[in-house]
Amino acid sequence: MNNISDNNICRVAVDAMGGDFAPENNVLGAIEALSSAKNLEVYLVGRQEEITNVLKKHGKSFPEDKIIDAPQVIDMHDSPVQAMKTKKDSSLMVGAKMVKDGKADALISAGNTGAMMAISTFVIGRIKGVSRPTIGTPLPTETGVPCHVFDAGASVDCKPAHLLEYAFLANTYLEEMYKIKNPKIGLLSVGEEETKGNELTFAAFKLLKDTNLNFVGNVEGRDVLKGSVDIVVCDGFTGNILLKFAESVLNLLKSKLRRYADQGILNKLGVLAAKGTLKNALSDMDYQKTGGVPLLGIDGISIIGHGSSSVDAVANMILQGRNMHFNNLIQIFKQKLEAYEQSK
Amino acid sequence: MNNISDNNICRVAVDAMGGDFAPENNVLGAIEALSSAKNLEVYLVGRQEEITNVLKKHGKSFPEDKIIDAPQVIDMHDSPVQAMKTKKDSSLMVGAKMVKDGKADALISAGNTGAMMAISTFVIGRIKGVSRPTIGTPLPTETGVPCHVFDAGASVDCKPAHLLEYAFLANTYLEEMYKIKNPKIGLLSVGEEETKGNELTFAAFKLLKDTNLNFVGNVEGRDVLKGSVDIVVCDGFTGNILLKFAESVLNLLKSKLRRYADQGILNKLGVLAAKGTLKNALSDMDYQKTGGVPLLGIDGISIIGHGSSSVDAVANMILQGRNMHFNNLIQIFKQKLEAYEQSK
Repeated sequence: MNNISDNNICRVAVDAMGGDFAPENNVLGAIEALSSAKNLEVYLVGRQEEITNVLKKHGKSFPEDKIIDAPQVIDMHDSPVQAMKTKKDSSLMVGAKMVKDGKADALISAGNTGAMMAISTFVIGRIKGVSRPTIGTPLPTETGVPCHVFDAGASVDCKPAHLLEYAFLANTYLEEMYKIKNPKIGLLSVGEEETKGNELTFAAFKLLKDTNLNFVGNVEGRDVLKGSVDIVVCDGFTGNILLKFAESVLNLLKSKLRRYADQGILNKLGVLAAKGTLKNALSDMDYQKTGGVPLLGIDGISIIGHGSSSVDAVANMILQGRNMHFNNLIQIFKQKLEAYEQSK
Repeated sequence: MNNISDNNICRVAVDAMGGDFAPENNVLGAIEALSSAKNLEVYLVGRQEEITNVLKKHGKSFPEDKIIDAPQVIDMHDSPVQAMKTKKDSSLMVGAKMVKDGKADALISAGNTGAMMAISTFVIGRIKGVSRPTIGTPLPTETGVPCHVFDAGASVDCKPAHLLEYAFLANTYLEEMYKIKNPKIGLLSVGEEETKGNELTFAAFKLLKDTNLNFVGNVEGRDVLKGSVDIVVCDGFTGNILLKFAESVLNLLKSKLRRYADQGILNKLGVLAAKGTLKNALSDMDYQKTGGVPLLGIDGISIIGHGSSSVDAVANMILQGRNMHFNNLIQIFKQKLEAYEQSK
């Protein structure tokens, strides 16, 4: 491994053991990503033998020096704190250390989300000025431009200052990665007026109003999919519930169509005819197909994927990490946070 | 007006001035309800002249002694507390007083939700043992049996004991009104394990576990539409955001289909063909068509409707009030709360 970062190359450490289809989807996703992008190096971190078996099974090859053996595995049931203490030779810990030591530029994992957040936070570390790293998720909207919800579950009990941090991080993320200038930011609440909300939003509203962010005030549950704003800020408890709810909407639709089809042959024909149209029209609501979500506020690139990530999803996460690297996102976060601190 | 309640008759006071289509939809809804149910008396409470004009316009008649003049109107922008103080002759205040004085058995309104909650709470009053009245909303599920979310926005900052109250009230409501024995109750959180959640849910979990309710533990955002439980308990901030989000899903679907149709004639034909099927299959996701939601914990029947309630929706709310009355819901709440207090 090369200790010195070459700016023309992005080195991504993949947690080969993370996710429901590990190591298979991670290995194949890495190969797919490598075949579609230049200036990319991928390290497969995990049980060498299992990785080699996947390669054999599919008749694929992978540079041996880029398979980093890590004999321990953090599974979905491991407590993040326990895992950090007792599984120092796990793929996640080894991968995070590579980023920390400058041997990799990004870490991606479809494994235990809590462990990934904890290990990124404590092994790679936070950017100065960030007290709580945050994950955000894009949701489809009526306008066609996604709305990003921050925080989507990194921190369940939030203080007003955390919501302000989320807004800052999300703002820079959308400006740099999506090239949206002055993204519109809304505070998720129960009414549009400043007087509507709970104790947390009342205080966060005041903080957000005093920034030079493009803060448009409170938004409601219905505004997310309407696309009234680019960024919705909320505590991770609300955000997590909202996103898991959103992910389940397609299943409800499918079950409703099934039920309706069962009521008669004409209904069945109608549903059959509608199916293809719906599938195409709603393709971007199928969350498991897309890539992962970055953990923002970490002093390095850390991307968390869905447990059931497909090969394409893993490849997308790797490319997303590469994209963040070449956009100098972490450096820009640091500069902006420093400038903000000095302006206070 | 008759001051003594006749058990064979249900008397519903309708806030004729509430909602976006007042008084028209309220007047027509009252007439529709009366034509479809026996043992029902409806009072139209509001500006007598405006009510009479609607009747004239549609060539309908209504017993004059059942039109209760109330010259003031609480609109959507009135602060609930201010409205209670300064609009004592409003339709909502007069209607609530009728219930308080035993001159009506139920109050329904499609008007200002906050004012309806405040006036019901302070004019009609709470049942002994209830500190926070609650509204719940049924959501469609994959199983076909709705899942009721309590609280849907009555109280944004909740204490653990409030969540326990919501569970009790919702439990009795589903047992008595939906004839569901021992409804399954879940606590909305960010993971199924008892260790997942925020400070509020940790404490509420402990309280709920110690009851004889059919408490199944934490449920996640995705469990609501899956129909894993009959009742989901949460604070009104989270519940309100979730429900407004759910209400907006159909609009996103419509916009996605429109966008897809715009991409070509074949797509357009597909969408046209799918439209009828979708409309039928998803009919119960059209929230504005259904009735209202009861405010539980009030010492009288109080039902709150959507601002854009149709004539059918108003009629449904009246029939819902009648149904609650003939099921002796308020009496049963009182008996159960008393029994619980004594069992402690």
